[in-house]
Amino acid sequence: MTTLFERHRPTLQAALDAAVKRDYWSAYPEIPSGKLYGETAKDDGLAAYKAFLGKPFRIANHPATRVVGAEVSPYGPPLGITYPAATVETLASASQAAARQWALASVDVRVGICLEILARLNARSFEMANAVMHTTGQSFAMAFQAGGPHAQDRGLEAVAYAYAEMRRTPEEAIWTKPQGKGEPITMEKHWRIMPRGISLVIGCNTFPTWNSYPGLFASLATGNTIIVKPHPAAILPLAITVEIIRQVLVEKGFSADTVLLAADAPGLEITKDLVQHPAIAIVDYTGSNSFGAWVRSNAGNAHVYTEEAGVNSIVIGATDNFAGMCSNIAFSLSLYSGQMCTAPQDIFVPRGGIETDEGHKSFDEVAAGIAAAVDGLLSDPARAAGVCGALANAATLARIAEARSLGRVVRDTAPIEGLGDARTATPLILSVDAADEAAYAEERFGPITFVVSVDDAADGVERAAELAERKGAITAALYETDEARILAAADRFAAAGVNLSVNLTGGIYVNQSAAFSDFHVTGANPAGNASLTDAAFVANRFRVVMWRRPVAA
Amino acid sequence: MTTLFERHRPTLQAALDAAVKRDYWSAYPEIPSGKLYGETAKDDGLAAYKAFLGKPFRIANHPATRVVGAEVSPYGPPLGITYPAATVETLASASQAAARQWALASVDVRVGICLEILARLNARSFEMANAVMHTTGQSFAMAFQAGGPHAQDRGLEAVAYAYAEMRRTPEEAIWTKPQGKGEPITMEKHWRIMPRGISLVIGCNTFPTWNSYPGLFASLATGNTIIVKPHPAAILPLAITVEIIRQVLVEKGFSADTVLLAADAPGLEITKDLVQHPAIAIVDYTGSNSFGAWVRSNAGNAHVYTEEAGVNSIVIGATDNFAGMCSNIAFSLSLYSGQMCTAPQDIFVPRGGIETDEGHKSFDEVAAGIAAAVDGLLSDPARAAGVCGALANAATLARIAEARSLGRVVRDTAPIEGLGDARTATPLILSVDAADEAAYAEERFGPITFVVSVDDAADGVERAAELAERKGAITAALYETDEARILAAADRFAAAGVNLSVNLTGGIYVNQSAAFSDFHVTGANPAGNASLTDAAFVANRFRVVMWRRPVAA
Repeated sequence: MTTLFERHRPTLQAALDAAVKRDYWSAYPEIPSGKLYGETAKDDGLAAYKAFLGKPFRIANHPATRVVGAEVSPYGPPLGITYPAATVETLASASQAAARQWALASVDVRVGICLEILARLNARSFEMANAVMHTTGQSFAMAFQAGGPHAQDRGLEAVAYAYAEMRRTPEEAIWTKPQGKGEPITMEKHWRIMPRGISLVIGCNTFPTWNSYPGLFASLATGNTIIVKPHPAAILPLAITVEIIRQVLVEKGFSADTVLLAADAPGLEITKDLVQHPAIAIVDYTGSNSFGAWVRSNAGNAHVYTEEAGVNSIVIGATDNFAGMCSNIAFSLSLYSGQMCTAPQDIFVPRGGIETDEGHKSFDEVAAGIAAAVDGLLSDPARAAGVCGALANAATLARIAEARSLGRVVRDTAPIEGLGDARTATPLILSVDAADEAAYAEERFGPITFVVSVDDAADGVERAAELAERKGAITAALYETDEARILAAADRFAAAGVNLSVNLTGGIYVNQSAAFSDFHVTGANPAGNASLTDAAFVANRFRVVMWRRPVAA
Repeated sequence: MTTLFERHRPTLQAALDAAVKRDYWSAYPEIPSGKLYGETAKDDGLAAYKAFLGKPFRIANHPATRVVGAEVSPYGPPLGITYPAATVETLASASQAAARQWALASVDVRVGICLEILARLNARSFEMANAVMHTTGQSFAMAFQAGGPHAQDRGLEAVAYAYAEMRRTPEEAIWTKPQGKGEPITMEKHWRIMPRGISLVIGCNTFPTWNSYPGLFASLATGNTIIVKPHPAAILPLAITVEIIRQVLVEKGFSADTVLLAADAPGLEITKDLVQHPAIAIVDYTGSNSFGAWVRSNAGNAHVYTEEAGVNSIVIGATDNFAGMCSNIAFSLSLYSGQMCTAPQDIFVPRGGIETDEGHKSFDEVAAGIAAAVDGLLSDPARAAGVCGALANAATLARIAEARSLGRVVRDTAPIEGLGDARTATPLILSVDAADEAAYAEERFGPITFVVSVDDAADGVERAAELAERKGAITAALYETDEARILAAADRFAAAGVNLSVNLTGGIYVNQSAAFSDFHVTGANPAGNASLTDAAFVANRFRVVMWRRPVAA
């Protein structure tokens, strides 16, 4: 019988190779096509999603003392789904009871199971797309990509890195030390991978799978048991994930409780109790800086990997493609209504204007050009809905309303037509001066953009980089035609720990990071302490323990 | 001109290969031989050491606002050496001023410099041996090996791991994403290694170089600047180290302040202020659990790597070489008077005795056999001095005196004859029952051993492993003839995160861990949170930052 590891080995090998080359590669097709996923996949996925609505979500044999669930689609209706819920103590005990068996499984068995889980998640990408869409507000197309294949790629990337790290030390070696003219001393040595303990994965509202899979799969592959704590507004995508994982585990003879769901209710979150539980050895967290700081301070001896938040900037110095620049930026501001952790917030533009292929453009003309490009992009309501989606949280609407007074309105926000009860808002673009730090130097989550007037491009780079160092930033973008200034900006943003995109005018956006090529977050500024996915993200999720003895002469 | 990297590349490559194979390998000869180190090396090293005594230690251009220094040799005389000392703020500012230049150096330049430093340290191993001997109390032979070539091997190991980690991501790649029938999107991507910041290395009294070099060289190779904080009783070995490092840095055009010495005075230690300074990004700490817990709790967002302490055990179930077992254990107990973090403290023996090649041995006969082997090993005072050395700290003498009442004295401690004013003590061996946890379950640093009566070998394994989980342990040893029981013990000690040595009867001792083969400390129990040296020890000392742009069509 072919093992799961053997069956999926080509995928693993390709992932390992891709992570070294860092050219484009993906294991899971990002196009929601019937040719790739099966002609009925789209309808089947929608039907599967609808079948969840208004019912208890079943996870076979999951510990449960009560049910929770109050998800409401940003597109309008409540989902009406309840989930099994248990106390922190019950979850921790169940996780610990499953630990020994999973720890003793071989690296290949664990990695094979992870790869099988990813394959099954991929097959259910349409179902997941609906679940992600109606918990995050992403448009269907984006929910499919980001919630499905792109999240699966990030999970696979973590499995590949984990596999590589676990294979760095041999399982056995013979150690022979010469003794001059005497007989050498010979020892046999045996090493094994030992997990850390329980790994807690804290999901976020906006990207419940994409941001959770790296930590989940890195910890699972390295032998830890997992407790997945979804955001109370986005439980379904992770409930589906946990259910699939438990199915595969049970089929292969492992305890389903190796992976548990810690669903909770809004206002009654159990996250803090989980983080502080002494059995939690690893925490993966995606969310705000304020709660992130609490997690980092209160996790005791647990290892904490965070993606928090920051203020991402674009600096415009000059461009040889003004129209392309404006439409590229317009898309970045509009995509998922600015609710991506990679979305730009501040656009620094010289107050004296910039040189372009269309001649000199004043500061106001640059701001107006971007605003016009947003208008053009979103002029068709159907396209606007496809790009912007809906707002995950009502607080974002309030935040946009408050922000309108923070500067001169260059482009006003508006709801998107034709989406019924959906909570929507197109980008608000404000113009401010560099001195107005109170306006633009705070993270204002959602479709809120500041065009900030600065002395010149170098001033913009310095302010953007300094802001990244102080508040965190996950992305930065630069438009510049002078090579020396490009290289100087690359140096400065590198020092600030921000990944920089230069002169994007086509079909690649600063918001996007591609698995196996782009590291997501650097871990080098307050936007997060870890990177998806590098060796540091996985190497400390397990330990290596040896035993040795003399080889009989 | 050959670069340092090219000159030392064969050593680096051999180290990289050795770390993968984990067979015996060493870059620096451990035998203090004139043939290897030069016929006058021994005399030259002693003369160099003597030339330091009674004078200010000069480190060219080192920040200094005062001098400190109160080292006293455990062999008697005060060293009378003073060292440049500065405030924490001065040191942090000087370190930060050197940071940018060192961060911008290429990986090969930094690694080449590290390898050159190690080569120069190696050439001065005799001088270092005297410095280590008279600050730690190690015998000359041990001080040469552990303070010189073995420490250098551990430094080289860290450089090799750092090099491998930094080379895992390419410096550049072309990313080409197919677009169906359209032109592919092509991006160029550039990655660079960015250090974390200032790396603080906190040395210990007993192994000032061996325990400091891994963190020091891992951080230096990855681009961080370093502040070395020696134990106030063992400054000289690290002062020599820092002085050599600064020489090489200056020769290659870098700021000497890339590596600084933070000498302080007993009772006026600046360690806490250093740990809490916001510019400190990495802390490597070797020392007690109590201060280790303080460091882990108070280092803020700095990454902390610790080797703390624990209670190491031997479990005796059976042996086919009773004499060899007793003499092997006797050496482990006597070596450096039990002041190694790897030295055994507790020996668990079935109260009904064990089967041996010399027939059944009662509990008392086993204890007596070990005691007699210690007596034999130390019967010649010169050999006793060479094995035991002196006690680093007067508190250890007091601890031994107090311990005498904790059980039945099987072998009493005694000073070593012929060493003049040296502070010495041979092993104290006590017999206790498994119920006397108050006696044996605490770390009692120094030559204090408990032979603990247990129900049977399995009971001993369980108690030893549980003690490791609760109090920490760096080593464990087992004597057993039944293969199933050996494998069961290997499982149990692995679960407790302790490296296990089985049936050592010849020239390898449980105290010893060999660079490039044995990982030192697992990081999986309270004896430390890191391992010397694995990928996890180096991979998070730097971050990777990218910039990317479209490739012009």
